[in-house]
Amino acid sequence: MTDFWKDSPELATTLERVALLMRDAVRGNDFPLEEAVGAIVESNGKMLRPAFLVLGSRFGKKGSVERVLPLAASIELLHVSTLIHDDVIDESDLRRGVPTLHTRFGVKDAVLAGDWLFARCFQLAAASASPEHAQALARLICAICAAEIRQDLDKWSYSPSLRAYHRKIAGKTAALFSLALHVGATEAKAPNRVAERLRRAGYDIGMAFQIIDDILDFESTEGVMRKPVGHDVAEGLCTLPLIHALRADEAGMRALLARLPRPGAARAGAAGASATAEAVAAILARSAELGGLDAARRDAERYTRRAQAAIDGLPAGAARDDLSRLTAKLLSRSY
Amino acid sequence: MTDFWKDSPELATTLERVALLMRDAVRGNDFPLEEAVGAIVESNGKMLRPAFLVLGSRFGKKGSVERVLPLAASIELLHVSTLIHDDVIDESDLRRGVPTLHTRFGVKDAVLAGDWLFARCFQLAAASASPEHAQALARLICAICAAEIRQDLDKWSYSPSLRAYHRKIAGKTAALFSLALHVGATEAKAPNRVAERLRRAGYDIGMAFQIIDDILDFESTEGVMRKPVGHDVAEGLCTLPLIHALRADEAGMRALLARLPRPGAARAGAAGASATAEAVAAILARSAELGGLDAARRDAERYTRRAQAAIDGLPAGAARDDLSRLTAKLLSRSY
Repeated sequence: MTDFWKDSPELATTLERVALLMRDAVRGNDFPLEEAVGAIVESNGKMLRPAFLVLGSRFGKKGSVERVLPLAASIELLHVSTLIHDDVIDESDLRRGVPTLHTRFGVKDAVLAGDWLFARCFQLAAASASPEHAQALARLICAICAAEIRQDLDKWSYSPSLRAYHRKIAGKTAALFSLALHVGATEAKAPNRVAERLRRAGYDIGMAFQIIDDILDFESTEGVMRKPVGHDVAEGLCTLPLIHALRADEAGMRALLARLPRPGAARAGAAGASATAEAVAAILARSAELGGLDAARRDAERYTRRAQAAIDGLPAGAARDDLSRLTAKLLSRSY
Repeated sequence: MTDFWKDSPELATTLERVALLMRDAVRGNDFPLEEAVGAIVESNGKMLRPAFLVLGSRFGKKGSVERVLPLAASIELLHVSTLIHDDVIDESDLRRGVPTLHTRFGVKDAVLAGDWLFARCFQLAAASASPEHAQALARLICAICAAEIRQDLDKWSYSPSLRAYHRKIAGKTAALFSLALHVGATEAKAPNRVAERLRRAGYDIGMAFQIIDDILDFESTEGVMRKPVGHDVAEGLCTLPLIHALRADEAGMRALLARLPRPGAARAGAAGASATAEAVAAILARSAELGGLDAARRDAERYTRRAQAAIDGLPAGAARDDLSRLTAKLLSRSY
């Protein structure tokens, strides 16, 4: 476990138990790649998704946390299975310091291992959640896949539509945070209005989280983010700071964007990389000048305020304090 | 629908309805690739898996067929989602005459589309089957993925173990046929002993079906099979005729197998292809001489007889007649 959770020792202990369940779901199930997939599962990250589920369940009946642990494991394993497929797609060599599956066993076994883990998660979910929640989880995965495909198809076409952007990040990020908090609360038989409030809080946290992620790509120098600055822009993505910049000066921004080398058309080697870096730098600088970053920051702050207001309306107690602390930490990126 | 079902008009009509449910599961769900994935889904093949599920349900209470249609659609969509991933892995250009997704949208969107369909199936299954059956379906997908990975890892290592072979094809094929018949019967509240008998029949049908598939790769000239002869051998797979040949003359067969060019080490272009073709031809010929094919045929016949005996023990009626006819057709490959 990372020291991300050092301020919430109760949650940290629970997440350790979720991690054990995740390990057990992979090991000892007659799965030929259990060692390799086990290593990826055990190199787990912050476990945000199960943390939201567990936090949601703490608003329900006493002792309910126990009941949602398998579902929490399932939701994080689903995340890991998408990471395995991401690594195949991106041809990444390492994931959290562990060699990726396709570098060790080839693309075929890596895709199949992701599928295996995917099915294993649904098995866990069907065994541990109500049929309605198992369905909700499956529906959510559909929404996430659809949002990722939509983002990929929209590459290199710069729509200044705020609505399309919000829809995309809602599917990609906010829906999952929202579902985790809501399902946790509902499985724990929390009152409906509490569960509803948690659903809204999760949505707002997720929206703010993703907008901040998109802003960091425009401003980070180093350290906080692992991605190089302007990575999204170089990939042809149109995120919120760029959308605001387009709305401020569409013709000017489109002229800059037209100078960005596309895959395939790009010049090879160092010349191509330098052309990309130059074009990206110009786009980042002009987006900032046009107030695109400031406008995006205001949007993130609006979602953050809404999230905190939703949380403040929840029943007081250790669960609310932990959720509030986690939200503040996530949305200030102070980690 | 293919004319595969022309002798079973009642089943054909039911499968048309399953096909409509499959179409509805993909269309109109805010899925960006619905047109492309829809085209693949609608180019459906024989729909064997849903046919077994529907046949199983006809041994239960009257009117139960209606109830299992969504699950039948789900089980076939799962199959389609694995085909989408297979095409990415094999870099195939066409599937049933329709361009594959990755040729149209790239690897990323093709993998994600397979994942989307996968999740959509689990959603349907969770909505339409009992939690136990939703779990069983997920567990089955795990077994299929594990068997495929095991087969891939075992390539180029020629174990003469009959047990390992049976285990592999049980996971790859027989478990699915078995589950479909059994779940269909159970969802339709058929008596336990009927459901159990169907489970065994499905297993034996699946085993015979896969062994025959493996035999055809050794003997087919053209027409019946679409794969080139010796495809499995050229790929480094060790199927039943080869296992029996190894058991008859291990040293001799290993000497022939050692002449088979491996990927990477293979000579490029026409020379490489001709070296492979020569080595494969020698292996096929010697396997036949050693009685490997005959022994494999006897194994297939044993499973076929067992399947027919299990079917004969089922309650008489149109359902049994249809199942018996389908089994005879599948296992004689008279289509």
